[in-house]
Amino acid sequence: MVDMKLGFIGLGKMGLPMVKRLVAAGHEVVVYDLNQEAAAQATSYGATAAKTTEALMAQLGQPAIVWLMIPAQVVDQQLGELLPHLPKGSVIIDGGNSDYRLTLKRSQQAQAAGVTLVDVGTSGGVLGGNRGYCMMVGGEDAVVTKLAPLFEALAEPQGWQHVGPSGAGHYVKMVHNAIEYGLMESYAEGYHMLKEGPFENLDLGRIGGLWQHGSIIDSLLNDLIKEALTENPSLEGIEGSVAESGEARWTLEEAAQHHIALPAIQAALDVRLQSQKGQTNFATKLLAAMRNKFGGHALNKK
Amino acid sequence: MVDMKLGFIGLGKMGLPMVKRLVAAGHEVVVYDLNQEAAAQATSYGATAAKTTEALMAQLGQPAIVWLMIPAQVVDQQLGELLPHLPKGSVIIDGGNSDYRLTLKRSQQAQAAGVTLVDVGTSGGVLGGNRGYCMMVGGEDAVVTKLAPLFEALAEPQGWQHVGPSGAGHYVKMVHNAIEYGLMESYAEGYHMLKEGPFENLDLGRIGGLWQHGSIIDSLLNDLIKEALTENPSLEGIEGSVAESGEARWTLEEAAQHHIALPAIQAALDVRLQSQKGQTNFATKLLAAMRNKFGGHALNKK
Repeated sequence: MVDMKLGFIGLGKMGLPMVKRLVAAGHEVVVYDLNQEAAAQATSYGATAAKTTEALMAQLGQPAIVWLMIPAQVVDQQLGELLPHLPKGSVIIDGGNSDYRLTLKRSQQAQAAGVTLVDVGTSGGVLGGNRGYCMMVGGEDAVVTKLAPLFEALAEPQGWQHVGPSGAGHYVKMVHNAIEYGLMESYAEGYHMLKEGPFENLDLGRIGGLWQHGSIIDSLLNDLIKEALTENPSLEGIEGSVAESGEARWTLEEAAQHHIALPAIQAALDVRLQSQKGQTNFATKLLAAMRNKFGGHALNKK
Repeated sequence: MVDMKLGFIGLGKMGLPMVKRLVAAGHEVVVYDLNQEAAAQATSYGATAAKTTEALMAQLGQPAIVWLMIPAQVVDQQLGELLPHLPKGSVIIDGGNSDYRLTLKRSQQAQAAGVTLVDVGTSGGVLGGNRGYCMMVGGEDAVVTKLAPLFEALAEPQGWQHVGPSGAGHYVKMVHNAIEYGLMESYAEGYHMLKEGPFENLDLGRIGGLWQHGSIIDSLLNDLIKEALTENPSLEGIEGSVAESGEARWTLEEAAQHHIALPAIQAALDVRLQSQKGQTNFATKLLAAMRNKFGGHALNKK
């Protein structure tokens, strides 16, 4: 395995443990984040912290590799800061949940600046830091091959793949998340029926555990539900207003263009939107509890 | 572990391997099925075959234990044959997918005949024969405790639970299956978007395998999808007309009574009903492929 040097921008719930995995695998990582505490934490893992993105670029190789793990809304701004200053032949990896349609545009924009953009859909949430992530990689063959040691460091064994050309990584991740919306909604509806149906006092956490042993609905999500309902059977203190972060909505927009109906995913998105307008119940509380378990998302709005 | 003697009626895709597990665990099983071949197969496992239900009852203990693993539509008829002839204190176990509302009525009917009905929701499909089933048991404490050696023989380790009073086993299994409908539909919609979306030539079987390594949508169902799409990437030869066997429909009826909305499960049921009227596509073909994988259901209508 080749040790590589790279810049890493964005040390949130996903980025910080990723830096830890990269450093642990022997890679040299220069990090940048506005959050000084997160940067200090990365330093404690063995990364070097830069005070500015300019300082970060100055410490990288020629050409450079920069991994972005930042909210989708600030990717354009970040590219604007990086692209004019990166040496030709540099690579930027967008590991966040960007809309693949924007990725296609950004890829061209990067190409015009002599830089290659590689898109990586990253699943695994806060669990990924320990067990390794699932990474869906889109981009040029040669560049993806060069980056393989990074993916090997970050992913669970067999947990990364070059799925297609530029944009395909974010596209496959977008569809992955849309499926996730539908799965979460299906479980939430079922547990709602256990909670408020004709049989009182069913032990939901215990039944969730049972379903992990030999049933057809055995899954990682159900394991997290079991944990959540064992710890807090009535989901007390959870409001049940559930955010949507775009992927299901984008998938539905794309589906309409291809004349594909996605009624379960549509239902899942609608429930989240309605929950934000106050239509909350045990099912939406469970959605919030799931997001907290796998994504570290706050249980309630601040 | 106590070895027990019981009658077993219904040697289909579920019943036959269950008899095999019971016999292997040391229980004495007298079987009955109209299908002579299935009965002969059970005999080869070490069971005794009875030619009629009367002959079956004559070979059982006093009181007797009879396990039913028959289609929901014939349970009443079977109970009608058994109840007048079983000794007081006997136990009938309905291990099939009966509507829990009928189970409540049948339980009273059995009680009037001096017989106890225990309801067992059995998940695991054709996979359960090897790995053990997931069993959701409803009924009286004392009777369920007495039957524990049978559940231990059939279930995966930790794969059975006494979930509640009479009817609760079938209720929890009904909700389990409704969740299963929603999960299957969510996956089917997502893979449909991979197949017919903007990126051609995505390798769906390979992506399905990737998602089993570190992603949040890792599940038994997705593992079966990966298998199906690896073996038959275009799902060629599958019509995509998908049966519904009642549980999602019953769950929706029950939900309406409790003023609970189940939009994803409703969507999943609607898609199956529409597929039967010819609205088939890659997603409904994948539903059929999943049902074939876990349930051994025919890929196409005869």
